[in-house]
Amino acid sequence: MTLATIAGVGVTKFGKQAERSIEEIGREALVRALKDAGVARDGVEEVFCGSSYGGPLIGQRILRDLGMTGIPITNVENACSSGAAALREACWAVKAGRADAVAVLGVEKLTRLGGGTLPLEPTDVEVNLGNVMPAVYAMRARRYMHETGATARHLAMIAVKAHEYGARNPNAQFQNRITVDDVMRSRMVADPLTLYMCCPTGDGAAAVIVTSEKRARELGAKPVRVEASVLQSGFYKTGFRDMASSELTERTSRLAYEAAGIGPQDVSLAEVHDAFASAELMYYEALGLCGKGEGAAVIERGDSGPGGRQPVNPSGGLACRGHPVGATGVAQIVEAVWQLRGQAGERQVPGAKVALTHCTGGGISGLDHGACAVHVLTS
Amino acid sequence: MTLATIAGVGVTKFGKQAERSIEEIGREALVRALKDAGVARDGVEEVFCGSSYGGPLIGQRILRDLGMTGIPITNVENACSSGAAALREACWAVKAGRADAVAVLGVEKLTRLGGGTLPLEPTDVEVNLGNVMPAVYAMRARRYMHETGATARHLAMIAVKAHEYGARNPNAQFQNRITVDDVMRSRMVADPLTLYMCCPTGDGAAAVIVTSEKRARELGAKPVRVEASVLQSGFYKTGFRDMASSELTERTSRLAYEAAGIGPQDVSLAEVHDAFASAELMYYEALGLCGKGEGAAVIERGDSGPGGRQPVNPSGGLACRGHPVGATGVAQIVEAVWQLRGQAGERQVPGAKVALTHCTGGGISGLDHGACAVHVLTS
Repeated sequence: MTLATIAGVGVTKFGKQAERSIEEIGREALVRALKDAGVARDGVEEVFCGSSYGGPLIGQRILRDLGMTGIPITNVENACSSGAAALREACWAVKAGRADAVAVLGVEKLTRLGGGTLPLEPTDVEVNLGNVMPAVYAMRARRYMHETGATARHLAMIAVKAHEYGARNPNAQFQNRITVDDVMRSRMVADPLTLYMCCPTGDGAAAVIVTSEKRARELGAKPVRVEASVLQSGFYKTGFRDMASSELTERTSRLAYEAAGIGPQDVSLAEVHDAFASAELMYYEALGLCGKGEGAAVIERGDSGPGGRQPVNPSGGLACRGHPVGATGVAQIVEAVWQLRGQAGERQVPGAKVALTHCTGGGISGLDHGACAVHVLTS
Repeated sequence: MTLATIAGVGVTKFGKQAERSIEEIGREALVRALKDAGVARDGVEEVFCGSSYGGPLIGQRILRDLGMTGIPITNVENACSSGAAALREACWAVKAGRADAVAVLGVEKLTRLGGGTLPLEPTDVEVNLGNVMPAVYAMRARRYMHETGATARHLAMIAVKAHEYGARNPNAQFQNRITVDDVMRSRMVADPLTLYMCCPTGDGAAAVIVTSEKRARELGAKPVRVEASVLQSGFYKTGFRDMASSELTERTSRLAYEAAGIGPQDVSLAEVHDAFASAELMYYEALGLCGKGEGAAVIERGDSGPGGRQPVNPSGGLACRGHPVGATGVAQIVEAVWQLRGQAGERQVPGAKVALTHCTGGGISGLDHGACAVHVLTS
């Protein structure tokens, strides 16, 4: 079911930008998206802003100095899927006829939190005893390797692919090519995850302009349609014996495929929540891009890399484009739109017709009831 | 335009509940609303949670231990209008046909922030130099008194009325009756605002179940309809000479009246954002409940009190029901529904047919670009 059209997109460079305010970072992305769409500031009828650590009225603070006021502004928090959840509300606002041109912003400045693993509830005993994100993902990775025969070298190959794509993305946080040996020799964070297998913290923003199909035609934009926008909640481990699969991602993507009327085989490219290299392998399976236990074969065959059958994370993904939490879901959409328009430069997926984006927030201890969002876009 | 129906409501007692977790507080309100609606936990198709300081995935954390999962959960932050903005998304989800039964939760635990004025951006120079909420409201109050001839005793009368209503509300944070002299003699916070003229910090949650009209009929609920749900952004002072009026509230309420097809004269009762007693006086005017400069006359005549023509804040308002930031917008709806159903006990407004709720977030320095939400409900 077509919900809405993306008429314009914009991102900032991702990375550590401690000297800039979060408002300035957000404004840069939004101004770029407005310019790309050919929509004036006063042509935006409503705004949704996704951010997890932006603080009160983050959207209003960003729009203030653009003179964009007198409209509904709603801030959405869903951890790593904040930006994607904001997009969902925007698409439905258009679908419902509430507005004809809605701006969606995803923005985060993680450097002001001091870096490292993110601040979590002080009452969360497990987290305070060390069960932080890298530790949890490392345990899942170990289980996945045990069950499927995947090795640490497969995880390293994911990191190499991410850096190859990052090198082709001028907005990526990391733009350097690396080798499997570089990954294997990088500092151990949580065995088997070395430094290059973990996404960085950083700052950045992304924005898209969502319009009705009619408005998009008036703007003369090459139409990119949102065919599915699915948000779901669920648990990260449904039991200690199935840590290596993601029921939440499986369910969310199944609902998205149904809504879009397509199957995994139709996906030209996917932007996937590779917070850690091992997660990307598991998500190949959960999204149906390969069969159970076949994640390692996908990266070995090169299916998900440049020139492959179904490229995954051509933007560089969380690993190399970067992962400013609330910005990620919108940044994935920006990459999808560029790919579907044929504007992705050196990382263009030839003939891209269908793009899937996937992000998923939460995952540890008190945040084990998480939020997953999957979007399907078509050209 | 009827958007949706409120089929059930629930609140916790408001007040300092430092010993309880925010999740526990949220669950209590939601369970009450579900019971009131006659909707089972697995009958809820979607959830919106309004909170300003709840932290990441607050809605998911609350729903987790109720076994409510496998549905979209979206957290909304709009400062003091967080809960109202969450309700707006829920109403439109029903209107758009996305869901037939949506739970809306507003929740906050301010005691964990240490009390006093709320934490604000560390980079906000004005706030850090002392330009905190009570200071800003005091300046506005002085200007309003200068322009209209209202006196500190009028502000005290607002506080007395709030306490009279609070004494009739078993869920209110303050349930004690006071006199004008009590108010005038209470500790000076920011001249002319004494302690009893300022809303307290506290903890609490409120929840409502939003359904389609069809679903509400099936549930057998006395229908309370949402006829307008308007969110707007705007500035708190458009210039230093008009500090004593609220363009933002005027505009938002005008749009709400238009959407509902009513005028201020049709309002049976209003729940208004009386963060400080002076604000309630100004909002009488901004909401059109009286003419310009006539706020003091309203309270002198007793129009807004028990037995008055248009009671305002029969719940006790922010001053006495309490103001756990994200919970307030939903708590106002709960009171409106009770009034429209004729279930408001000792504080019932006789023959109530139309209720207006108004809350407004932001207002100082870096947060001067704020969010205002107005809802119109009818029985």
